[in-house]
Amino acid sequence: MRPAIKLVRKWWSYGPKPQKLRIWDPQAVGSGLLPRSSHARGLHQTGDHLQHSNLTYKHSNQVFKDIDIGNTSRRSGFQMRNFGSSTMGSTILRDERFAILEECDIHYFQKVVGERAVINDKDELEAANVDWLGKFKGASQVLLRPRTTKQVASILQYCNSRGIAVVPQGGNTSLVGGSVPVFDEVIVNLGAMNKILSFDEVSGVLVCEAGCILENLDKYLAEHGFTMPLDLGAKGSCQIGGNVSTNAGGLRFLRYGSLHGNVLGLEVVLPDGTIVDMLGTLRKDNTGYDLKQLFIGGEGTLGVVTKVSLLTPAKLSSVNVAFLACQDYLSCQEVLVLAKKKLGEVLSAFEFLDRSSLDMALDHLEGMRDPLPSAKQKFYLLIETTGSNENHDKEKLDVFLEDAVRTGHVVDGVVAQDNSQSSAFWRIREGIAEALNKAGAVYKYDLSIPVKDLYQLVEEMRAKLGDSAIVIGYGHLGDGNLHLNISAPKYDEKLLLQIEPFVYEWTSQHKGSVSAEHGLGFMKPHAIHYSKTPETVQLMVKMKNLLDPNGILNPYKVLPSIHI
Amino acid sequence: MRPAIKLVRKWWSYGPKPQKLRIWDPQAVGSGLLPRSSHARGLHQTGDHLQHSNLTYKHSNQVFKDIDIGNTSRRSGFQMRNFGSSTMGSTILRDERFAILEECDIHYFQKVVGERAVINDKDELEAANVDWLGKFKGASQVLLRPRTTKQVASILQYCNSRGIAVVPQGGNTSLVGGSVPVFDEVIVNLGAMNKILSFDEVSGVLVCEAGCILENLDKYLAEHGFTMPLDLGAKGSCQIGGNVSTNAGGLRFLRYGSLHGNVLGLEVVLPDGTIVDMLGTLRKDNTGYDLKQLFIGGEGTLGVVTKVSLLTPAKLSSVNVAFLACQDYLSCQEVLVLAKKKLGEVLSAFEFLDRSSLDMALDHLEGMRDPLPSAKQKFYLLIETTGSNENHDKEKLDVFLEDAVRTGHVVDGVVAQDNSQSSAFWRIREGIAEALNKAGAVYKYDLSIPVKDLYQLVEEMRAKLGDSAIVIGYGHLGDGNLHLNISAPKYDEKLLLQIEPFVYEWTSQHKGSVSAEHGLGFMKPHAIHYSKTPETVQLMVKMKNLLDPNGILNPYKVLPSIHI
Repeated sequence: MRPAIKLVRKWWSYGPKPQKLRIWDPQAVGSGLLPRSSHARGLHQTGDHLQHSNLTYKHSNQVFKDIDIGNTSRRSGFQMRNFGSSTMGSTILRDERFAILEECDIHYFQKVVGERAVINDKDELEAANVDWLGKFKGASQVLLRPRTTKQVASILQYCNSRGIAVVPQGGNTSLVGGSVPVFDEVIVNLGAMNKILSFDEVSGVLVCEAGCILENLDKYLAEHGFTMPLDLGAKGSCQIGGNVSTNAGGLRFLRYGSLHGNVLGLEVVLPDGTIVDMLGTLRKDNTGYDLKQLFIGGEGTLGVVTKVSLLTPAKLSSVNVAFLACQDYLSCQEVLVLAKKKLGEVLSAFEFLDRSSLDMALDHLEGMRDPLPSAKQKFYLLIETTGSNENHDKEKLDVFLEDAVRTGHVVDGVVAQDNSQSSAFWRIREGIAEALNKAGAVYKYDLSIPVKDLYQLVEEMRAKLGDSAIVIGYGHLGDGNLHLNISAPKYDEKLLLQIEPFVYEWTSQHKGSVSAEHGLGFMKPHAIHYSKTPETVQLMVKMKNLLDPNGILNPYKVLPSIHI
Repeated sequence: MRPAIKLVRKWWSYGPKPQKLRIWDPQAVGSGLLPRSSHARGLHQTGDHLQHSNLTYKHSNQVFKDIDIGNTSRRSGFQMRNFGSSTMGSTILRDERFAILEECDIHYFQKVVGERAVINDKDELEAANVDWLGKFKGASQVLLRPRTTKQVASILQYCNSRGIAVVPQGGNTSLVGGSVPVFDEVIVNLGAMNKILSFDEVSGVLVCEAGCILENLDKYLAEHGFTMPLDLGAKGSCQIGGNVSTNAGGLRFLRYGSLHGNVLGLEVVLPDGTIVDMLGTLRKDNTGYDLKQLFIGGEGTLGVVTKVSLLTPAKLSSVNVAFLACQDYLSCQEVLVLAKKKLGEVLSAFEFLDRSSLDMALDHLEGMRDPLPSAKQKFYLLIETTGSNENHDKEKLDVFLEDAVRTGHVVDGVVAQDNSQSSAFWRIREGIAEALNKAGAVYKYDLSIPVKDLYQLVEEMRAKLGDSAIVIGYGHLGDGNLHLNISAPKYDEKLLLQIEPFVYEWTSQHKGSVSAEHGLGFMKPHAIHYSKTPETVQLMVKMKNLLDPNGILNPYKVLPSIHI
């Protein structure tokens, strides 16, 4: 589990300081410290538009060019540098359509959410400006903490009319820079909207506000005999609104499937402030287009999710966890097929990690112990069953394990004897991301690849990079989801150029996805074409333009338009 | 199972015959029989648009008014009458934006799909013009059977440029008039695109063309140890493209969930002929907006689904079916809660039918036998378990049944001893729709209602209608999905006025959905506001205008715009 207090460290120098934005200080309001740029800088009066729909989507290894809009090449004082993706070393320019925050804006926000919910405390702002990995840092001067949907609507309506860019923020646990400002966007943090609104013990339908923390929801449900259909390493910090907006996958995906199936309803505020109440609580509702789906995985670029209705499964009484070792990757696949067959309906997780992943966790996290210390193996599997009858589940697990060992696919293994052992096994798997973060610089890739080819990429990458970095592979094997991570002492442009675009090209050639569950955020918009056709991206751009014609919501993210 | 050969009967008189359209006869091409209305009738040259976005969505019991566009009230020679919904007795006018089919159009179609795939055979056309219930009848003069996506694209591109309206058609098993033309739309039947393209036995991912019949896919998968995640009474006729386009629910929904979760990818042709390849085969892919979701349940109004990629579950070896009787509806609910608890992960269906439903099946279908003939009860449940271990499943079922009987919630019951008995039980449940159709006129309502309130509507309706009709209630209790059906000797306006809008208002007041799984089609667009807010409908209209600005695709369906 990631710590609830977010790590803020390791960010690079961020180029020249903002020349136009100064730190907002309520004491200074009216003192002339704030720039007095007029509303004419905003979108409406200049009449400028980024012509998204005319863009071509080129296969990239190109560095970004200046944004050329009409006749003027726009250069702004705001620049941001970031590392760990192919945006490295390049300069993204602030979109000058967006207005600069003024005194009157702050007054308006204070009127809407109250003075205490308009945050300009330096430490709080710094934490909110930097992502969990410490890779991306924005320069937002104000963070708002609305407590109601109406407040969110008022904020967006105002920002839209003024041309002020906004970044919606949940628990700020994005691994692709999706939840932090890129420049001076106003941060709208949903954390104060954290009420559970209803729970129906017959249907298992939970309705809550977007700012509820995932782990808190799971604890609440456990008291009623239910559980959340998703579980992540970040559960102690991440919020359900962010989970929905990023279509989070996680550890229970294999059993309970995608949020596209489990989310029954949403309340969403559109960029123009319209509140769209799609907060149904029915399993079946075929009355028109299922529009809520657009916001599931929309990464906060189409609307701000304010309330969520979710189908939650019963918490089944019997849980078993086994930690197994395999000699080779082929055996891991054989064990997966066997598990599907023998464990059938009780299989709830099938995770894998290679030896380097295990070593990473053992070396960098406290209190870790190798569950299978007798001999080092190349691959490890964490398999979980969840069912309603302990005897049945144990019998199924025994039969499965006997087969797996008899056939030689599993060479060593241990079944947790109590909750404490189960937690210890899970802690290894869930702790790898944190361990990597402690180990140094890390290049993270979250890929979907057909299971048979999945580990080949790790091996090719290892061969390619030699001793210059540690390449580790782990992830949700049952879902074909590889977390490829490259750990190095420090961020290095040469290393990055060895990794990218190779990793994306390889994934594309193997019909994979360059973002299985993390999303595109700020890190990967340029890579979208490796997994999506030009027609599909074009349609996404149309969708964005339809819902957010002024582009104020979470700009510079998801779509590649401003990067070309 | 519904018969593969569709019943075509019982339709009403349809008002005046088309005055402008004549039967197209290839022999007559060039003979002057075809009207020579010019392209100027098309959309582009008149410049007329239905101003969808300016519409207000009124609570209806209103009859439809003429469509008033700009300064001209458009009256067309085409009129259609239909029964069994509140459109009864009202007149829908043909949208004059649409061009009238000409000789050159037929030539174009022949060039694209070949002469044999341009159908004007009277019987075939008649079957394709009428829905399965025999309630709605269009006047299309031509049916096209494309064999490739490119052919579909050429057809749509052409029709879009000419302003020719199109209705996409699968197995034509819609229960809401969604799959038949309303006036003279060109029918594009996907039935000839029926190839299975790939199946992966490790991941269970099936890729196939849209015209594959559901039952054929299930049979194919069974040979490989897998099964379709959905099952419907119409499986012998319905096509997977139609299932996806209508977000079909059905009998396995309780276990495997919605198509929004199970469809991994789609290939779709947009109304302008653009082919959008979103045919991914990955369980996880968070690279941008999940646009395919719009077409799942889009009812063919946003694009034509041409290929489908679907996650299919393993076919588990152990299936048990029990047919149980309860004295009252409260007991049915108690049994549902008990089944979720005791059967847990092996519960795969929880269907209910009242005594009137059982009688309907016994009276009107051949070879039916009451599974519990000793005493008539008010309610019956069909419960299915599906699992990987027969002994475990039987033990769970035994424990569950003992509890259910001991507590008095179940008063009688029988467990199928073999496949033949299981099929006989299912035949009763699946045959009710067919039996109703044989019994006379039927008013069908497919509603989602919170389980606790669900049967109250049946009782209130029964009290309201007295002896004038037979009111029956059955459906997917596990999903809160009631099929309310009112059977009468013939369609009768007075009876309908007693049913509607009462049924919709009641459902709306109980926070239900006026279409759980059947969709809105032609029958229910006017009722959308009972389940969706004005802002949501407005957003749907925007989406339709974005993707189909000329409105050529499946017009007069889903959205209420043309009805106000």
